[in-house]
Amino acid sequence: MMNRQAIGIDFGGTTIKTALVEESRIVARGPIIATRQAGGREEIMRALAEIVADLRTPQTAALGIGLPGIVDGARGVVHELSNVPGWNEVPLRGQLAELTGLPVTIENDANAMAYAEWKFGAAGQQRNVVCVTLGTGVGGGLILNGELYRGSGWAAGEIGQMSIDFRGPPDHYGTRGSLEQFVGNHLIAERAAALYGGAKTPADCPPAALALAAENGDPIARQLWQNIGEEIGAALVNVVWLLNPDCLVIGGGIAQAGALLFDPISATLQARLPPYYAKNLRLVPATLGTDAGAIGAAALALAAL
Amino acid sequence: MMNRQAIGIDFGGTTIKTALVEESRIVARGPIIATRQAGGREEIMRALAEIVADLRTPQTAALGIGLPGIVDGARGVVHELSNVPGWNEVPLRGQLAELTGLPVTIENDANAMAYAEWKFGAAGQQRNVVCVTLGTGVGGGLILNGELYRGSGWAAGEIGQMSIDFRGPPDHYGTRGSLEQFVGNHLIAERAAALYGGAKTPADCPPAALALAAENGDPIARQLWQNIGEEIGAALVNVVWLLNPDCLVIGGGIAQAGALLFDPISATLQARLPPYYAKNLRLVPATLGTDAGAIGAAALALAAL
Repeated sequence: MMNRQAIGIDFGGTTIKTALVEESRIVARGPIIATRQAGGREEIMRALAEIVADLRTPQTAALGIGLPGIVDGARGVVHELSNVPGWNEVPLRGQLAELTGLPVTIENDANAMAYAEWKFGAAGQQRNVVCVTLGTGVGGGLILNGELYRGSGWAAGEIGQMSIDFRGPPDHYGTRGSLEQFVGNHLIAERAAALYGGAKTPADCPPAALALAAENGDPIARQLWQNIGEEIGAALVNVVWLLNPDCLVIGGGIAQAGALLFDPISATLQARLPPYYAKNLRLVPATLGTDAGAIGAAALALAAL
Repeated sequence: MMNRQAIGIDFGGTTIKTALVEESRIVARGPIIATRQAGGREEIMRALAEIVADLRTPQTAALGIGLPGIVDGARGVVHELSNVPGWNEVPLRGQLAELTGLPVTIENDANAMAYAEWKFGAAGQQRNVVCVTLGTGVGGGLILNGELYRGSGWAAGEIGQMSIDFRGPPDHYGTRGSLEQFVGNHLIAERAAALYGGAKTPADCPPAALALAAENGDPIARQLWQNIGEEIGAALVNVVWLLNPDCLVIGGGIAQAGALLFDPISATLQARLPPYYAKNLRLVPATLGTDAGAIGAAALALAAL
């Protein structure tokens, strides 16, 4: 008997990646679409239909897509996307089903990643798991009682929007002192440039360069990672008090900094939580990397059959 | 056919209240036990067994008890109580079942209250509900996907321990700037006394007196309620970003301040959340008052049959 496969689409603000997936394994990859250069919605849909037709095998049983925004799985509608204009109230599930003939599941991208890390990755299917993705934005996904938790309006898990300083400056949503305002990639680069006092620009300070500098003993870079870890840790302390999970999974670009980031996060969790909450709490890096979105979308599509 | 009844026990740090409950209605009440004056654990258990025997009717099908601490429902064990010494690792479910002959459910007290407000009270059985109880401490309970959410270690929902200022002073758990450090009853009284600059002591400033003063136009009291509302609102903004609930229920002593408290909470939610999260979110006062704990414990006991 052949294993079932599904096609997973990771629809990002910059690129759209498509893969044929079997369990957690990527069997084949479609060409990458540049989200903004691909034209409008219709062109993207046509391109996706072609890629899916090319990738599809006789075992392909379903199609899943993760998108960066509010995705209403009950109605099958994309309510809005965070950084991609023109995707408001789009009945995407029906449209993709019609274009491909496959059963379609649509999902928020951070939820798809969280599901992949829960089912196949770092979280090992523990009962209650919180996943955080650190990148340009800070996203999150929740697995509660062994199921993806989506909230009443399909908009739960926004850890990056949670505040760590209620007196801080408001972001574009009005939230004061949100975590993303401290540790979004651009913010980290700006903070670094400011700490270097004009000797470097934000463009000189991508996370990888800051990690290298810290590993080479640069005191400014070391202090910055310490601060970032404490800030992320403080947000996670709040999540743990509220949800008392088994496992925290940290992924995304700056998670590549490894111990520079994980050590101060872990120290903050230990210092700011009572032992009862901290002792059985695992803090682990994501293991599926940039494939998590497509793998999770495919797995959710199969699970929905 | 007669309706089933259950006995609900609300075990608090100050008093232990027992009631015979049918649906949301209290049919009869047992004498109140003063927790600290009742002697040790054995005396309390004996007193409870007597009260239960007196209250019990032929329709009484179960016994539920809510306690202020970490209550492991799977093992039927009280792990520890917050302000009552001598209740560590107590196999309370089995002990009460033996003493009374009834099927017993044990639960965290804030969870029992949240369940009561969800099933019979302010929350109207909406799908995802967050309950906050404002008192000496600030407690919380979560109903997610229509079920009480307890977390991996039976310790979820601790909204009062969530931080609103990650640089704030550490509390006894090590958490910096937790909500309870801002709006616990004693803290409110101390803040008021400080604002009155020696003209009043904390003992002059219980919540009811501060509410009366504010209603009479006292500018210090008015400002204090504004600040308290903003602080509670900021914590709730975090909960909404994470859980995207339908309904927030606010109960406990200081919730009696009514609009003085609810207006700034509501304004903070509106100002700090995008309309998508705020527009379908209900903010409501608890409706079951001080009976919520016993009603919820009884209802959980019946639901577990």
